[in-house]
Parts: sequence; structure tokens; C-alpha cells
Amino acid sequence: MEVTENRIQRSELLEKVMPATEAAKLVKNGMNIGTSGFTPAGYPKAVPLALAERAREEQLKINLWTGASVGDELDGALTRAGVIAKRLPYQTNKSIRNAINERKVQYIDLNLSQTPQQARYGFFGHLDLAIAEAVAITPEGNLIPSTSIGNTPTFVQMADKVIVEINTSQPLELEGMHDIYIPADPPARQPIPLTRVDEQIGTPYIPCDPGKIAAIVITDIQDDVRPLVPINEVSQRMADHLISFLHNEIKHNRLPKNLLPLQSGVGSVANAVLAGMVNSDFNDLELYSEVIQDSVLDLLDAGKLRFASGTSLTLSEKGVRRFKENIRNYRQKIILRPQEISNNPEIARRLGVIAMNTALEADIYGNVNSTHVMGSRMINGIGGSGDFASSAYLTIFTTASTARDGAISCVVPMVSHVDHTEHNVHVIITEWGVADLRNKSPLERARLIIDHCAHPDYRPLLQDYLDKALRKGGHIPHYLPEALSWHVRFQETGSMKPV
Amino acid sequence: MEVTENRIQRSELLEKVMPATEAAKLVKNGMNIGTSGFTPAGYPKAVPLALAERAREEQLKINLWTGASVGDELDGALTRAGVIAKRLPYQTNKSIRNAINERKVQYIDLNLSQTPQQARYGFFGHLDLAIAEAVAITPEGNLIPSTSIGNTPTFVQMADKVIVEINTSQPLELEGMHDIYIPADPPARQPIPLTRVDEQIGTPYIPCDPGKIAAIVITDIQDDVRPLVPINEVSQRMADHLISFLHNEIKHNRLPKNLLPLQSGVGSVANAVLAGMVNSDFNDLELYSEVIQDSVLDLLDAGKLRFASGTSLTLSEKGVRRFKENIRNYRQKIILRPQEISNNPEIARRLGVIAMNTALEADIYGNVNSTHVMGSRMINGIGGSGDFASSAYLTIFTTASTARDGAISCVVPMVSHVDHTEHNVHVIITEWGVADLRNKSPLERARLIIDHCAHPDYRPLLQDYLDKALRKGGHIPHYLPEALSWHVRFQETGSMKPV
Repeated sequence: MEVTENRIQRSELLEKVMPATEAAKLVKNGMNIGTSGFTPAGYPKAVPLALAERAREEQLKINLWTGASVGDELDGALTRAGVIAKRLPYQTNKSIRNAINERKVQYIDLNLSQTPQQARYGFFGHLDLAIAEAVAITPEGNLIPSTSIGNTPTFVQMADKVIVEINTSQPLELEGMHDIYIPADPPARQPIPLTRVDEQIGTPYIPCDPGKIAAIVITDIQDDVRPLVPINEVSQRMADHLISFLHNEIKHNRLPKNLLPLQSGVGSVANAVLAGMVNSDFNDLELYSEVIQDSVLDLLDAGKLRFASGTSLTLSEKGVRRFKENIRNYRQKIILRPQEISNNPEIARRLGVIAMNTALEADIYGNVNSTHVMGSRMINGIGGSGDFASSAYLTIFTTASTARDGAISCVVPMVSHVDHTEHNVHVIITEWGVADLRNKSPLERARLIIDHCAHPDYRPLLQDYLDKALRKGGHIPHYLPEALSWHVRFQETGSMKPV
Repeated sequence: MEVTENRIQRSELLEKVMPATEAAKLVKNGMNIGTSGFTPAGYPKAVPLALAERAREEQLKINLWTGASVGDELDGALTRAGVIAKRLPYQTNKSIRNAINERKVQYIDLNLSQTPQQARYGFFGHLDLAIAEAVAITPEGNLIPSTSIGNTPTFVQMADKVIVEINTSQPLELEGMHDIYIPADPPARQPIPLTRVDEQIGTPYIPCDPGKIAAIVITDIQDDVRPLVPINEVSQRMADHLISFLHNEIKHNRLPKNLLPLQSGVGSVANAVLAGMVNSDFNDLELYSEVIQDSVLDLLDAGKLRFASGTSLTLSEKGVRRFKENIRNYRQKIILRPQEISNNPEIARRLGVIAMNTALEADIYGNVNSTHVMGSRMINGIGGSGDFASSAYLTIFTTASTARDGAISCVVPMVSHVDHTEHNVHVIITEWGVADLRNKSPLERARLIIDHCAHPDYRPLLQDYLDKALRKGGHIPHYLPEALSWHVRFQETGSMKPV
């Protein structure tokens, strides 16, 4: 009870505390439901688990909107219970990924910064219910978020009713690390006033009308933390190429000495790049990104990073312990924002973000596929990569030159799905080298990408394709009968290499 | 001489007046040259013609940067003289288009709002010379632009030397219609303070260090005006669909009664849409677009349009006369801005622009090709469509359902080139109807596009493809061996229809 009063600081709301099974009854068939969560951090856990349980006894379908990916208690449990009809804007969970690819769940893969405004514009319909994890409710009824912000501020503003999950595994000391700003909608919108990575432009809480809070559930289920992705040799080589490319930009006065704010995707390459910066001669770095990972703590501890802005704190188990032990220190240098701000193209372009994201495959003209294997099978989604790629100072994509032990070339004649067009891709990096596509015509790009990025096994094949395409002619030479033939060959034989 | 002193208000610059042939000698082989001009409006004419003449006698290659397309005196004459090595960011001229498709000119097709900042960031190298048309030079040496602004402010700022073409066919009364604002570069950039279509945030002149003005050429060659594109029946039907779609958005409270600022591409459909609005019950409309065409004058005269913001004034011969006769009136309601502002995603998103652009082809999942016929042959370029499509409140693409008398379906299984990804396309309209893709999964989108947008002749064929693709499976069902087979069939037989 002591815990409860500490966490629920508006006494009239104490009567709204109920078990998750009771709160889950507020969910009705056919509802649109928006939840907190961005990565497996800060998403509701107890109510979704209770809802999945309830769905064993009755037919129940909802449309689920989140910040981005969430933990298995939400996407996994509800998918396996058959509860999710429609899902947006991003996911990384195995159960729901399979359901999406079997088209049992209708999935809408959106640019993450656009999701909240399109929700407010009414493009996805009415929002019936928001379910938000919080570390506390203030005396005014406002919510102190936990380890992510995502779209929670907009969902809480829009929804008829709000269920709050107070998570006691999340430390109260997180308060003060959040900066909540919701832009007004056109025609009333004003410039978003953020001009520095460390600036505070909003409130440390999510504004919430206490009359909308229909249930409060106390839980201590921890975030479904991610294990650290190990850095392999291929990632290390890509990171080395990327760091020397950045050094070269400084040398030619195209970047200041301390670079510009970095945006970094997640995974092995991102870890290798940030780890490389720990041991580099860079100083006073800044991060303006989505996800704050363990490597950010390393950079802060090494004194290399001045400040980090993101929308989620997604640490390993060890990282969580490390963060909690030193939380008062870290929270001076880390800020979490709504994804509408962390990913906003207005801000990314103003600050001059260096966008570093991972491609699934790239083609010889610089188009990038980030989402669909062989043009069809969804991996995760575009996430924030489109927000940043289209607005960054410098847009860099990394990919290993091959996948599946060389059976797949990640450099192909034509990508099987386009998430980032040739107009927005400045640099492609594989373990073999760097293709700087700026100020290059399509033919110049093709030669650079083949020579610098493709795996040597595939270079002659790509050159053959280009030669054949050149005989066909045009500004972007293509030989259409074979443009997707590598993918077809993989589907038929299990390898892109000719038999 | 009277004309000259009226137009060149800084007396020490009078000695810089020289014939175009003399000014053209400032151009050296290998130079990067940036010119004024956006559409065939406000581009330099006399110096390029003299340069083309000079190139008959000596080997001369330059890299040419402009605002967007320009008139034949520049792109046409210099291409035919073999002077252009590399060209960015957009063109619409027959001579250079052919040279680009023969790869005699290396062409870089860029998002127009990004061109000036990338120039300043050094991505295209050093700018040796700017050639700018102006109606006058102020006593301080600043330039009063003529019928377009484009990238002139950035080119004048960057270049070592400036040649000014004073064009006496352009009325002095244009002064006051321009609003020049150049954002600072990161990390010093501030929010662009524009919050209303009619706001002035900069200076009425292009700042220019008079010491950089190396030559002044007086000319009276008129803008290579465009004939009005007639509205055909197919365009009219698309415009009708679009206008009733907008009415429906208002009805469902997804748009205010006077809509939000309109951005409109050029051509027959754009003309039909804007003409349709003249006769509609819309009032207090606003335009935040690139190109101000005759239809804008119609809307202003009809009292339907409150204000128009663009970067160029591109009128027909009749439109030019009409504009000049009433210039003092029109200039109260029209403003021209640098393309970095007119096309800026920060502003388009803030104002909530409704982006209406033309597709060359769209696929059943909502990807749009705006640039390359059969994936290879460049028509014009992406222009501003990417700036607006990625940042608009609502992104609409229109296309006739077929081309070449039905031999080409503009709705295909997979587009042969992607300029606008499925993530950024909200609505597709053909003469057959509207596909509203918002909140729709790929399969839902495919069904809508086939049923509402494809030509009836092609619907069964698209349905066949979809059925085949569904047997293959995945989130975005594709049958890759036939994904581009329609384009291949057209290349082989002259028609996408099976023999």
C-alpha cells in the first residue's frame, strides 16, 4: 500500500486500482486500442496477458496501435490468442511476424514519426482505449512514463478511456528524464522549438485527464530486455569503413570535428560503430536517435558523448543494472521524447542528423530495401529509417555484402522492394568498402557499388547485368527480363548464384 | 541608358555592363556553374546562348546546377553544343532529356528542396560561377529576381563570381513579390519561422556582395512561356474524383471546410483540379506549391483563393499579359520563395499541405513511379514531388489508368522504378475512381486499386497476378517471375496486353 500511494499520487484514483483481469474487461470486441511501448521497453504487460487469457473463452478482435515493437506479453500473447485483427506501425515479434506473413494479421507498416499525427488526423479511425505503462501518476492525474515514450502522449490524448499499468519494477527516478511535447495540428501548428539535442521543450509528464482513467493495474513484470547483439567481424569491418568515411568528411570540411548528431539503428553494425567511437579520437559527440542502447552508456562513461536524445531506453539485462546503479548521473545526459519528436524530419533536418541504418539489400543504383525478403516476406518494418533517411544531413546504409553463407547477394540488379529511393541514399557501406553516391549519375553509382560494395563472387555477375542493361539503354539502364532474376533463382534453387 | 540606371541602381556597377559574348568568356572549361531558373521562368538566356556559340570554336564542358527545369536557351542550346557534362537537379527539355537517356549528360535527379543545402554542404563540389537573371540591382548590389527564385540565393552566396542578366522584358513591378530566406546550416540552423502561407520571413532581394558581380548583361529575351495544357475528358474525371474525395474528407472531419494549403503539380490534371475549384463551393483556399500557373489567376479572380505561395510564376502567353495588366493587384496575393522554402518538408508538414501530384505508373501495393518509363527512360525527374509526398498532411497521386491508347496499363503488378514508396502514398486516383489506401494492409490496398483504379481491360489480368502472388504468400504477395512481365511484354510486343 505504501508503494501504491507513492506511485498513485492522486488519492481519488486509488479506487481505480484493480486486478488485470478486471481491467481487461474494459476491452470490447472491435475496439481500436493504442498502447505505450517502443522496442520491448515501457509497454503494458499485465493487461495484455489477462486479455489473451480472456480470449480463450470468447471471440475477441482488436486493432492494435503501439509506438513501435513491443514485448512478447503484448504482440506475442495477443497474436497467439488470435486477438489482433489489424496492427500498426511496427513489430519485431516472431509470433506476429508469422501471422503478418500468413496475412492473419493485417499489418500497416508506417513511418514512425507520422503515426501519431495520422492517428490524430483520424486516418485510422476513433481510438477507444489507451493502455499505458507508467512509473507513477502525479497529483494532477498526469502520467510519468517509464522506459519509452513512443506514441503514448497522443494515444492518451485521443482515447475515450485510459488504463494505466503502474510498473513497480521501473524506478521512480526515471521522473525528469522525459520531455513531452505534442505539436498542434494544421493549420495551427507552430515550429517545433527544439534546436539542440539536450533541449527541453515540453513537460516531464504525459498530460492526462484523470476522469479518463478507467483502471489502474499494479504490476512488476519487467521489460523483456534484449540480449546484446555480439559484434562479428563483418560488422566490425563495416564500422571501420564508416568511421574512416566520417574522418574523410571532416578532412574535406563537409562535417565539423565533433560530427553532427548521430542517429543509429539497432543491431550488430550499430553496436560496432558506437563501440568504434568509444576508442576513437572523436569528442563531444551527440546522439539524436530512437533507441538508447548499452553502447550509449559506454560512450557516456568514456566521456565521448555529450548528450543522447531518444524515445526508448532499451538496455540488456546488464545494462539495466548498470543504468539503475548510476541513474542520477545518466539522467543528466539522456532524454526521452515522443517518437513524433525523436523521429521528426523537421528536427532531423534542422540538427543535421547523420542517419546510419541497416539495409536488407541495395541495388546497383542505390535503392534500398529494409523490410521485405524477396519482396514479400516482412521482417520488421520501415520503422524510423524513412523519417531519418529522407531528412538527414547525410544518409548512410550498411549491409553485409551477402547473406545465408553467400547464397544471397545483398547487392542486386534491382531491389525486390523499395523503402528508400535512390533520391535519399547518399552512401552505401558493406564489409568490402564504401560507395559514396553523392553527385553521381546512375551509371557512376552502379560502377561504384559493384566495385566497392558487392562481394567479389557476385561482382562479375553484376557487371554482366550492367553490360546487358547498357545495351538496352536509358538513364537508369535495366534489362527487365533479368532485373529480378536473382531473387527468382534464389526462390527456385536456394541460391542467387547461377547453377 | 535611362533603362540601365533604373535597373542598375549601384553606379559603380555600370562599368560591369558588357555584351553577352564578353560575359560568356568568364566561363572556363570544367567549371561548376549555378544558374537562376525554375521552370522556363527567370533563367538566364543571353549568356547561355553566347556560351553555346563559343563552344562551336572550342572544347568546353561545364557542370550545370539550376533550380529546376529551364528554357531552351539554357538546357537546349548548351546540350546541343555539347557543353553540359553533369546536370542537376531537374529538367524538362527535349534535347537534354535525350542526351540524358543516351548518357551523354550525367544527370542527378534530386529532391528539389534538398539541392541548395546539399550544394552548401559541399556535396557537389565548389561553385565557381553563378548566372542569375534579375529585374534590377539595388543600390547595395543586391538582386531583385524576376519570375522565379529557385536556388539563386544559395548559388549567389556560394559562387566565386556572379554574372547578372538584367532582363528588361521582366517588369520592375515584380519587386516586392519575393521573400528570400536562406536557412543557416547545422548545427546553427534555427526553425524556419514560416507559419502561414502569406507570411514574409526574409528580404525582398537576393543578398549579393557587389564585389562578386563580374559582369552584367542587358537582355530582353522573354521567358520561354508554356502553352496552356488543355483539359481532356480523362483529366476532368480525375479532377471530379479528387474534388469529391476532398468533400468527403470534410464531411468526416478529416479536413477543415476551406481545406488546407494545396500543392499541385503541373499539367492537365492539375489544371482540371484547379479549374474545378473555380466552380466549386470551396472558399478561402490557399496554395503552398512550387509553380504558379494561369489557373491560380483564375482562382484569385473568382475570389476562391486567399493567397498563393510558390517559387516560380509560369504563365502562358495570355497569362503573362493578364498578369502584367493587373500586376499591382496580383502581387498582393502571390509570393515567390526560394525552393528550399517553397518545397521544405518542415513547412509542408507544419502547414498540413495537401499534395497532389502525377504518377507515371502505380502498382497494386501503392508504390509510385514518377520518373522512368519502363524503369529506364527518364522523363523529367522527381522534382518537388518527393519533398511534398513525404511530408504532406495528405498525399494524393493521379494517373490516367492507361497510356498509349491502352497499350500501357498505368496500374501494374510492380512499378519498374520507385520514387514514392507505399509508406508515403495515401490516395491513388485514376479516371475510374479513388483508392484510399490509408489504414489498409497491402492485400486490402491491392483489392482497392484493382477494383477502383485499374482500367477494366486490365482488371482481370491484375487479379490473375494477385491470385498467383497469393499462392506464393507473404505480407506483400508477389510472384516475382511475372512481377515485371508486363513491362517486358510491352518492350517486346508494343503492348502490355497478352497476345
